[in-house]
Amino acid sequence: MCDKPIIESLLDIDFYKLSMGQMIFHRHPKVPVTLSFINRTARVPLAEIVSIGRLREELEHCRTLRFSSQELHYIMGTYEYEQPMFQLDYINFLKGLALPEFNLEIDGDQLKISFPGDWAEATYWETLAMSIVNELYYRALMQKYSPFERELVESDGKIALGRKIRELRRNPNITFSDFGTRRRFSRQWQDYVVSILAKECPDQFKGTSNVLLAQRYGLMPTGTNAHELPMVYSGIYFEEDTEKNPTYSQHRVLADWEEEYGMGLSIFLPDTFGSDWFFSNAVTPKQFRNWKGSRQDSGIPLKYAEKRIQEYQDAGIDPKEKLIVFADGLRVETMKEISERLHGRIRYTFGWGTDLTNDLGFKSISIVVKAVEAAGHPVAKLSDNISKATGPRVAVERMKQMVGYTNTFAEACKS
Amino acid sequence: MCDKPIIESLLDIDFYKLSMGQMIFHRHPKVPVTLSFINRTARVPLAEIVSIGRLREELEHCRTLRFSSQELHYIMGTYEYEQPMFQLDYINFLKGLALPEFNLEIDGDQLKISFPGDWAEATYWETLAMSIVNELYYRALMQKYSPFERELVESDGKIALGRKIRELRRNPNITFSDFGTRRRFSRQWQDYVVSILAKECPDQFKGTSNVLLAQRYGLMPTGTNAHELPMVYSGIYFEEDTEKNPTYSQHRVLADWEEEYGMGLSIFLPDTFGSDWFFSNAVTPKQFRNWKGSRQDSGIPLKYAEKRIQEYQDAGIDPKEKLIVFADGLRVETMKEISERLHGRIRYTFGWGTDLTNDLGFKSISIVVKAVEAAGHPVAKLSDNISKATGPRVAVERMKQMVGYTNTFAEACKS
Repeated sequence: MCDKPIIESLLDIDFYKLSMGQMIFHRHPKVPVTLSFINRTARVPLAEIVSIGRLREELEHCRTLRFSSQELHYIMGTYEYEQPMFQLDYINFLKGLALPEFNLEIDGDQLKISFPGDWAEATYWETLAMSIVNELYYRALMQKYSPFERELVESDGKIALGRKIRELRRNPNITFSDFGTRRRFSRQWQDYVVSILAKECPDQFKGTSNVLLAQRYGLMPTGTNAHELPMVYSGIYFEEDTEKNPTYSQHRVLADWEEEYGMGLSIFLPDTFGSDWFFSNAVTPKQFRNWKGSRQDSGIPLKYAEKRIQEYQDAGIDPKEKLIVFADGLRVETMKEISERLHGRIRYTFGWGTDLTNDLGFKSISIVVKAVEAAGHPVAKLSDNISKATGPRVAVERMKQMVGYTNTFAEACKS
Repeated sequence: MCDKPIIESLLDIDFYKLSMGQMIFHRHPKVPVTLSFINRTARVPLAEIVSIGRLREELEHCRTLRFSSQELHYIMGTYEYEQPMFQLDYINFLKGLALPEFNLEIDGDQLKISFPGDWAEATYWETLAMSIVNELYYRALMQKYSPFERELVESDGKIALGRKIRELRRNPNITFSDFGTRRRFSRQWQDYVVSILAKECPDQFKGTSNVLLAQRYGLMPTGTNAHELPMVYSGIYFEEDTEKNPTYSQHRVLADWEEEYGMGLSIFLPDTFGSDWFFSNAVTPKQFRNWKGSRQDSGIPLKYAEKRIQEYQDAGIDPKEKLIVFADGLRVETMKEISERLHGRIRYTFGWGTDLTNDLGFKSISIVVKAVEAAGHPVAKLSDNISKATGPRVAVERMKQMVGYTNTFAEACKS
C-alpha cells in the first residue's frame, strides 16, 4: 500500500467529535479523562499482527497535525443544523489544538492504548486512533497477498458496493449516511466509497460523518453526539448520581446540549445506560416532545422502534414527525426490513458503518475507543446489548445497580 | 476510455504474422490478395454501434506506423524456435513496411472492410483490424455506463481472471499461451491480463502470441502459421489443384514452410479444408513422422485428439513425442477435460483466446479477417466446423468438392 501517513488532516474525524467538542470546550475543558482502546474481537491477536512501531509513528504523526485555515473555515461555516452552530472561541481553540500524549504498550497479544488528558483535547483521539489501528490491521493482512490478489480484494469490494447500490435503488425509501470512518478498510477506500455513492446514489445518500470527506465531496457532515458525553458526565457528577437518583448526569447532558445547540442537533442517544431506563427516567416530557428523535445503536432495531412509536403515541405525539437514526451494524437487508416495517409510521434514516466502508472480503474487527475514567472516577457504558458494555467492572456494576439494568439481550458485536 | 490510438506499434500483432510474413516475403511477395473483415455474429449490427469515422481514423493511424529499430532488433533476435529464424532481407523489408490502403464502407447494419494489396504487405492487417474493431465495439458499449459501472466491468474481469488462475493452479498439467490479441476487450486489458499471468502463473503460462507483449514482459512469442497460407496458396496454385489432385497447394505450403524454418515451427494447421482430408491426403508419411504436432482449431477437441493418437500409433510413432495445440474457443473447463483425458498419452498445450482477454461480462462477437481472393481467384476455408467456413460460396463449394468434404459438424462459433 502507500507509505503516506494514514491521517493527514485533523478533519479526518467524525463530525460528532466537533459538535461534542464545542460543548466540552465550553463547559468542561479541563476535566481529566482517559480514553482507552478496546478490541472486542479478542480472538484476533492485534499486537501480533500490527507493527507497534508503525502504530506509534502513525499516532505520533497525528500529534503533529494542526487544523488549517481552510479547515477552520469549513467548520465555522457549518450551516446544516438550523443555526450557525460553531462559535469563534471554539474555532480559536481548535486553531491551537495539538493532540495530547498517548500511552501505547503490548499486553499479551493485544494492544494497550490509552489517551489521558484534558477532556477538551483528548476527545479527538477516538476516531483517529480507530481509523489508524483498523487500517494498519488490514494493511498487515494485505501484506501476505500478491499485488494481483490485492487488486482482487479491491474488485471484491467494488462488486459488493455495486450490488448494494443496485439494491438500494430498488428501495428508494432508504436514505443513509456513511458512518464508517472508524472501522474503514482504509482511508483511500472510504474516500472511494463516498465518492461513488455521491455520484451513483445522490437521492438516497444523505451525507457522511467524516468531515474531510463531507468537505471534499460537498456532502452533509452528519452526526450529533456519542456515549462519551453521558459517560464522562457520570464521572463529573459522580456524587450527584446515586441509586436513589441516578439521572443527574444524563439530565445535564441533555440540558447542556439543548443550551448549546437548541433543537438543531436534538437526537437522543439513549442506550448508554439502557434505552428503557433513559426514556422512563432521564428524559423530561418536554424534551421527549421537542427533540427530533433518537439514535438506535444497540439492541434489536425493530423492537426499539415499536417501543418508541408506542411511547410517542401514548404521549399524544405523532410518531410520523419523529426520527430514528439506526446505526448499529447495518446491512442492506437490515435496512430493507426496517424500512418495510416502519415506512409511513415514523421517520427513519440509517448511519451505515463497517458494512459500507469495510466489505472487501475480510472479517471486520470490533474495536472501540471509549472513556474509562473521568474526573477521577471509573466510567462505563451499558448499552442495550450487554456484550457492548465497556468500562471498568466496578463502574459497569455501579451503573447497572443505579439504573436497575435488567436487559439480558446479548449478541456478538456486529462491528 | 482513453483517446490514444488503439494500435501504437506494428509489433502489436500475432507472432504468426511474422513467421508467415517472412515466408510470404521470400516466395510470393507480389501476389495480389484481398483480405476481408467478416462479422460472424450477424445479430450484432456493428455499423450501428461502432463509429465509422473513428474506425477509419484508427485504421488510417495504422498506416502511419513503422517498425522501430528496437522492434526490428527484437524480431531479428527471436531465438525461441531452434535457429535464428528471421533473415536480414526480411528485416529490411519490415523496416520499409507501410500498411497498404483499405476499403471501408457500410453495408446495411454491417461494416464492410477489405484489404487488397500485395500479399507481403496486406497480410499484416489481419489482427490489427480485428483488435481495432473489437476495441471500438466494447468502447461503444461502455459509453452507456457510468464511470463506476465501468469500474465494475473491470472488477468483474479481475474476479473472473482470479478464479481462472486459482483453477489453473489446481491443474498444473495445463500449460497455455495467450492467443487473445484479435478479440481482446481492449489493448490495455490484454496487457493487464498478460502482466498478471506472467507474475501469478509463471510455470503454466508459456507465452503470448502478441509480439509487443512478449517483448514487454519477457515472454515467449508464440504461434506458427494460419489458414491464410493454404487459402492463398489455393489461389496461387489454382490450376494445379483439381478434383483429381486437390493437394498441390497444401503440399506446397508444408514444403515451403519446412524449407523456411526446418522443424522449429513444424506445427500442422490441418483444418483449412478439413483435418481428415489433410491427414489422409496432404501430409507425406515423412512429414507426419517429423513434424512436432498440430493445432486443433475447429471441431471437437477430444475426437480430434483420439484420431491423431490412433494415427500416430498406426504409423508406429509414439504419440507421447507429439504435440497438440488446442486453440478453439477454450475455457478452463474445456482445458481441464482435455488435460484429464490426454495426460500421459500425447503432449498438449493450449492457445487461449477470447475467454482469456475478453471475459468482463459482455458477450463476445465472432469476427475474423480472412483472405477471400488470391492471384485473381476466390479462396475459401472449410474448417472442421462448417459454421466456421469462410470465403465466396463458389470457392467453398469448389474446395468441398475437391477434397470430398463430408463433415457435418456445425456449431455456433465460440469466438
